[in-house]
Amino acid sequence: MTERTGRRPGDPDTRGVILAAARAAFAGRGYTAASIRQVATAADVDPALVMHYFGSKRQLFITATGVDARELEGLIETLAAADIDTLGERLARFYVALIDMPDSPVLAILRSAMSDDEAARTLREFVTEELIGRIVARLDSPDAALRGGLIGAQLVGVAVLRRAVGVEPLASVDAEVVVAWLAPTLQRYLKVPTPEVAPPNPPVG
Amino acid sequence: MTERTGRRPGDPDTRGVILAAARAAFAGRGYTAASIRQVATAADVDPALVMHYFGSKRQLFITATGVDARELEGLIETLAAADIDTLGERLARFYVALIDMPDSPVLAILRSAMSDDEAARTLREFVTEELIGRIVARLDSPDAALRGGLIGAQLVGVAVLRRAVGVEPLASVDAEVVVAWLAPTLQRYLKVPTPEVAPPNPPVG
Repeated sequence: MTERTGRRPGDPDTRGVILAAARAAFAGRGYTAASIRQVATAADVDPALVMHYFGSKRQLFITATGVDARELEGLIETLAAADIDTLGERLARFYVALIDMPDSPVLAILRSAMSDDEAARTLREFVTEELIGRIVARLDSPDAALRGGLIGAQLVGVAVLRRAVGVEPLASVDAEVVVAWLAPTLQRYLKVPTPEVAPPNPPVG
Repeated sequence: MTERTGRRPGDPDTRGVILAAARAAFAGRGYTAASIRQVATAADVDPALVMHYFGSKRQLFITATGVDARELEGLIETLAAADIDTLGERLARFYVALIDMPDSPVLAILRSAMSDDEAARTLREFVTEELIGRIVARLDSPDAALRGGLIGAQLVGVAVLRRAVGVEPLASVDAEVVVAWLAPTLQRYLKVPTPEVAPPNPPVG
């Protein structure tokens, strides 16, 4: 449902209304199909005002999906937390709260990234810089980036099965149950020694 | 590129050509946007022949994405393997080989499921019956289905980051490196005691 309250370029909350409309558009239609014009219509403002606030569809997407919002600050704070021995649990709790939000930005990002190369690049850059980059900065390990990727994979998969696809009972169990299961997995990726790799299989004839 | 070799209803490989065209269509366009007519055009056959072989778009999707193909037999064999202590590693190795295939059915399924409710239901049913159901059958644990969901989440997330989004170095490392990291995670979900859950947080004011 589109809320119709008249065009209000001077309203201090206009930016927030545009962001909410963008979030709904990206989540529902994906990155490519959503347009500045549709977002403007849904927010009941002029497309030029959307451009004035955000500059481009890409920047609107990044902002709408929370990359420079409070969630990112929470993530940075979590990843920068002093005690690496509790990082797995902090990260799990922060992330599950993030994906359990209605209209979670994580779901919008994932939906777009699965269907659009540009959105995939946005997610790749985000995961690489903001998640893996910060984990690498915390770890003194030659495979820190791979560990970060495996953590990202576990987290992304939980969003897909818990929220997008709805596989039970993972979709319905209490957030703290998910945290209790995820935390040791994440902690393991942060801390265990690099595993030995089996020798390569002989070529299949 | 569409291969044009003339309509050939009697060709014994026609079914395979249709399936290849369907796989490309579902992977590229998602479940809803792909149509029987487009698949028939790409395979250079009559739409009625596609219906003759597969009966419906849904059945074509299920068949094209490998649900009743050799991959599923491999999965079932893996999950039914006698030794539960090596199940994590077997499952990891089987799954990484599956997602590393060119035009992997897993990617087609995921892309469709992220953008379409019916495809999401297909994936949900597949994961629940074929993956979680078989894990539940192997485990004597009240939370066996949740363990199966967490295993599914870890596996799905690896497909997303390694193949769909391309986060490095996870996207490029040798399959055996991924297996070596994943196997203990899967094994842990199969075998560790149910974790204790933190008491609920006080309500936020």
